[in-house]
Amino acid sequence: MPKYIDVRSDTVTFPTEEMLDAMRNAVVGDDVYEDDPTVIELEKRSAGILGKEAAVFVPSGTFANQLAIMTHTSRGNEIIIPESNHIVIHEVGASAVLSQVQLRTVKDNFGEIDISILEKAVRLYDIHFPKTGLICMENAHSSGKVVSIKNMKQVYEFASKQNIPVHLDGARIFNAAIVLKTKPAEIAGYCDSVMFCLSKGLCCPIGSVLAGSYDFIKRARKNRKLMGGGLRQAGYIAAPGLIALEKMTKRLGEDHECAKYLAEGLGKIDEINILENQLDINMVFFTIKKDNFNEIAFIEYLGKNNIKINPSEGSEFRFVTHYWIKKQNVDYMLGIIKRFFDK
Amino acid sequence: MPKYIDVRSDTVTFPTEEMLDAMRNAVVGDDVYEDDPTVIELEKRSAGILGKEAAVFVPSGTFANQLAIMTHTSRGNEIIIPESNHIVIHEVGASAVLSQVQLRTVKDNFGEIDISILEKAVRLYDIHFPKTGLICMENAHSSGKVVSIKNMKQVYEFASKQNIPVHLDGARIFNAAIVLKTKPAEIAGYCDSVMFCLSKGLCCPIGSVLAGSYDFIKRARKNRKLMGGGLRQAGYIAAPGLIALEKMTKRLGEDHECAKYLAEGLGKIDEINILENQLDINMVFFTIKKDNFNEIAFIEYLGKNNIKINPSEGSEFRFVTHYWIKKQNVDYMLGIIKRFFDK
Amino acid sequence: MPKYIDVRSDTVTFPTEEMLDAMRNAVVGDDVYEDDPTVIELEKRSAGILGKEAAVFVPSGTFANQLAIMTHTSRGNEIIIPESNHIVIHEVGASAVLSQVQLRTVKDNFGEIDISILEKAVRLYDIHFPKTGLICMENAHSSGKVVSIKNMKQVYEFASKQNIPVHLDGARIFNAAIVLKTKPAEIAGYCDSVMFCLSKGLCCPIGSVLAGSYDFIKRARKNRKLMGGGLRQAGYIAAPGLIALEKMTKRLGEDHECAKYLAEGLGKIDEINILENQLDINMVFFTIKKDNFNEIAFIEYLGKNNIKINPSEGSEFRFVTHYWIKKQNVDYMLGIIKRFFDK
Amino acid sequence: MPKYIDVRSDTVTFPTEEMLDAMRNAVVGDDVYEDDPTVIELEKRSAGILGKEAAVFVPSGTFANQLAIMTHTSRGNEIIIPESNHIVIHEVGASAVLSQVQLRTVKDNFGEIDISILEKAVRLYDIHFPKTGLICMENAHSSGKVVSIKNMKQVYEFASKQNIPVHLDGARIFNAAIVLKTKPAEIAGYCDSVMFCLSKGLCCPIGSVLAGSYDFIKRARKNRKLMGGGLRQAGYIAAPGLIALEKMTKRLGEDHECAKYLAEGLGKIDEINILENQLDINMVFFTIKKDNFNEIAFIEYLGKNNIKINPSEGSEFRFVTHYWIKKQNVDYMLGIIKRFFDK
Repeated sequence: MPKYIDVRSDTVTFPTEEMLDAMRNAVVGDDVYEDDPTVIELEKRSAGILGKEAAVFVPSGTFANQLAIMTHTSRGNEIIIPESNHIVIHEVGASAVLSQVQLRTVKDNFGEIDISILEKAVRLYDIHFPKTGLICMENAHSSGKVVSIKNMKQVYEFASKQNIPVHLDGARIFNAAIVLKTKPAEIAGYCDSVMFCLSKGLCCPIGSVLAGSYDFIKRARKNRKLMGGGLRQAGYIAAPGLIALEKMTKRLGEDHECAKYLAEGLGKIDEINILENQLDINMVFFTIKKDNFNEIAFIEYLGKNNIKINPSEGSEFRFVTHYWIKKQNVDYMLGIIKRFFDK
Repeated sequence: MPKYIDVRSDTVTFPTEEMLDAMRNAVVGDDVYEDDPTVIELEKRSAGILGKEAAVFVPSGTFANQLAIMTHTSRGNEIIIPESNHIVIHEVGASAVLSQVQLRTVKDNFGEIDISILEKAVRLYDIHFPKTGLICMENAHSSGKVVSIKNMKQVYEFASKQNIPVHLDGARIFNAAIVLKTKPAEIAGYCDSVMFCLSKGLCCPIGSVLAGSYDFIKRARKNRKLMGGGLRQAGYIAAPGLIALEKMTKRLGEDHECAKYLAEGLGKIDEINILENQLDINMVFFTIKKDNFNEIAFIEYLGKNNIKINPSEGSEFRFVTHYWIKKQNVDYMLGIIKRFFDK
Repeated sequence: MPKYIDVRSDTVTFPTEEMLDAMRNAVVGDDVYEDDPTVIELEKRSAGILGKEAAVFVPSGTFANQLAIMTHTSRGNEIIIPESNHIVIHEVGASAVLSQVQLRTVKDNFGEIDISILEKAVRLYDIHFPKTGLICMENAHSSGKVVSIKNMKQVYEFASKQNIPVHLDGARIFNAAIVLKTKPAEIAGYCDSVMFCLSKGLCCPIGSVLAGSYDFIKRARKNRKLMGGGLRQAGYIAAPGLIALEKMTKRLGEDHECAKYLAEGLGKIDEINILENQLDINMVFFTIKKDNFNEIAFIEYLGKNNIKINPSEGSEFRFVTHYWIKKQNVDYMLGIIKRFFDK
Repeated sequence: MPKYIDVRSDTVTFPTEEMLDAMRNAVVGDDVYEDDPTVIELEKRSAGILGKEAAVFVPSGTFANQLAIMTHTSRGNEIIIPESNHIVIHEVGASAVLSQVQLRTVKDNFGEIDISILEKAVRLYDIHFPKTGLICMENAHSSGKVVSIKNMKQVYEFASKQNIPVHLDGARIFNAAIVLKTKPAEIAGYCDSVMFCLSKGLCCPIGSVLAGSYDFIKRARKNRKLMGGGLRQAGYIAAPGLIALEKMTKRLGEDHECAKYLAEGLGKIDEINILENQLDINMVFFTIKKDNFNEIAFIEYLGKNNIKINPSEGSEFRFVTHYWIKKQNVDYMLGIIKRFFDK
């Protein structure tokens, strides 16, 4: 058990003992030579779960998204993408550097795109226009909301008619699947490529998986080498992934309940304003309504009480629940936070 | 006199006889060796008019903007820019290809940016964020509107405090200056670099000018070579520019009046809906309110009557007035168009 | 007549009176709309002379080469190219910036590539290797030498078998054709795309032409816009090109003779060592064999005597002859130079 | 013990039981938050061993080299590098894609650069030239040779005078240190940044380390995120690295001896021609002197006898020794190979 209650992100999750044992005992090989049976098994099972032909294991979520962009596009293409997506906000502007593509960001509703907006954003052939080379979606969305199957389907059908591929940033697709009461493969059915993270709510230490068609993954495998993601005995970090796929994907509903429980408790504190409509998954967003609120003091105070949180972004705090946060931890947190505002 | 009434753009303008004579008789040299006195004179005078230390002559407006971006930024920077600007919409996605920068497009009001939006868009230092390397403005804006001095100033003061340079796409800065009843140098006072086009309303055949500090222009000169814009006896096309600066910049008000006269006439046609608040400069935007309007037939009909227009973009038509369009041409056009809808 | 004897390059050439008249009287249009009949005519005739389907007019030689590279390759491709070629040495490293390609430079013999070297340089499919996307040749080569038809053919046949396109930097292809006693189309028959410069020995003030297949040129036209090379009334600078194609291409042999005459004269000066085997075209390369030779004094002395030369590169001086240098100018130069060493 | 004798590379090495235990029991955290004590310890110790201020853990050797290039250079810089180096040959042309830099490859002597060649390759300031932004060395060199301290020093002193940074691809720097009978810090004293691989002869499953100044590593940390190399509980793969640094770095001499023993044995086979002067480290290079030698049959035959080898590159075979290859394995291999040629 960790010594801290860490709600900064679900990336902070440690593996379970079972996962650590799997890591210790993994059968491995040199994955650049495609010799690692554990990696191969993880890629195969991931592809199966997502309903895709093939998959490739990569070091991180940003790596997976940027690899998808590099593999789908040619230099100079334009990508249509919701302006609030992770690729736009939290990936260091990588797509312009690594793939020389322009992001055409569009207004979105927590990751959902209105088709009328999409219609206007797609470029016709014109000597002044870049070619629209990709549409990117994100589900679950990093706002804590889930994109509806309806919107996924609309976007994908629209894109397919125009021969534009769709990539899904499914870092938390298993969370989305639980909320949408469906299988990940149904969600991933509305995109040409999809990635998910093993190192977030699924508790693995390292790694993400990108899935798509055989041809796409073959080309991605070479681009992965170019980007420096060709690993050697990667089976050691793939092994916990196999357990995560089997067990962790099924229990994420607990984290969602825990987030709702946390939101309910926080909502009872006068100074806290919960963003009620962003409570789909394992995240609680809130703002502070208090004059002279001292954020630095707040963070330090929690730290002293063994609670780790992130600074606010644009005045919004985000608390993330996960495997290592149980109801009793939430109760403890609520007590501590209440005391801060009661002072 | 041209055989056509061409309202597709002010880029279609021919030079005057005086300009052609200047071209014929220009004193030139090899400008890559910085030997061409006419180019040097044009650069010097342009810098003077814009209140900048130095300037460099380039082949086109897109070249000037992209050269500014390359010279201001490092790979991986992010540029804050109104989502409707020319650089976003009409420059083939060049900035990702040539300079590997990400465009952070923001909602704008015909080129004006609300400072609160700017504040949110600027990136703090964070391992997940690209550095904000540049803010781009456009004045006159390609919507036909002029950006107020107030907004220019606000943006520039905000940017300067953050040590972020500002580039101004002043393709039609002389049009803007007339509308704002000020000197181009006042507008350009609120940016670190500015470009303008000789080949639009100023009637020159080819070329734009980028101006800024000595150091900036020195580095731009090298980047110009990299981008393939090192010209040889460029004085021949710089020579008409000197006349344009002296004479053409002062008469652009006539084009604005002509545009208003055209808008007034078009507005009287029932089927035409003028976008009344985009009438600042030499452009008239309108939509057609008629069931079964046949755009292709409309364009062909006008073509047969020696009137060249562009197809609509997103259902909006744009007619552009310029030196070669006089009131009698407008009267003729109005008659022809009226007849189309009367049929 | 110019006031100087300028042997820095053939880029310094002024147009003739006939060219200036053609420029003054050109029939033009807006070439971005493909409306300029003079540009269209120049492109058509250039394609014809080179035996290609189509051509596109661009601002400079560097622009033409870089546009060819951008249009032939995908990001991440490797280009095999002689290590002494202009693209490697004198184009500011542009191909990595504009097209994200790696130059695989190979040992060459004044631009000729040994096929055994080529065989080793081409990449097989391997996850560690970039794809060989292009081979670049240069003829005439900037060393002053001409590449043989035999080598052009060998390289092209080898490349074609491997489905690798060949681009020819034919900045001085008309010089090469005269030396090889053949038509430019024969030389250009051994490449997929070829560019030549109007602004070097052909005396035009500005511009180069890139030729290739219809499809290639269509794509190049769009990339030209991206690179900022979409010009407006470009007919004014295309017009002298039509005369150049007709008249100037035929007289380049005079420049070659003049260069040999100059070399002969210089060779008689004790302190000068002519690089005898680089005397194919309009260039004379030499080194100085004199202790305490003061290059700066030499250049200044010539300048005072109205002779412009470039500094040496790697201890080699290059003098270039052209239309504006006649035998009497050479005699004058020889006298002046002799006096410098006699002092 | 592995079931195969695998001489394809030292990347195929498995970790020892002690390393696996260290992995199982590592104390970890989220390294993107710089919270992982094991990673921090590995970075600190690596920096110490290399005599640098700081270090950063990355997923692979290619990642480390490309990250160094991205962090040292600006877009458009030129890198001087021996034409046979790993970065040129085996990194998928990444530096043009990720960093938009041109490789200026120079003739080398198994990784050593003649200073006179370097002097010619460095670019002066000129509008036609890219800026020389970096010099790259590799030690041990992938030819199996070690670069002398003398050459390292010459290159570094030359570069420092010109204010050009030097990056050392020290994938096998510990092998080099043993051959050169010095400490890694002495070798790394002649460069500004250095990387080494944990996943080669040091037996770790995954990972490399890049070291340099505080400022350099801080910027590299952000670029690592951009390239998708921000890992979470990376301590699990860093933990074996700590053991490797302590124990594995000291025993590499055994691999070198084993390679010499293998070379001696192979040299006695008539059909095998050992490249005698490339026997510095744990590699044996040889060619086959036999008419109608069937490489595919050779590889298959060895495979059936549980020996894994790579195909030849340019007719050269490379066998690599490592921790899991003992003298008795070599004896077995020699017997098997002899039998192949005796048939």
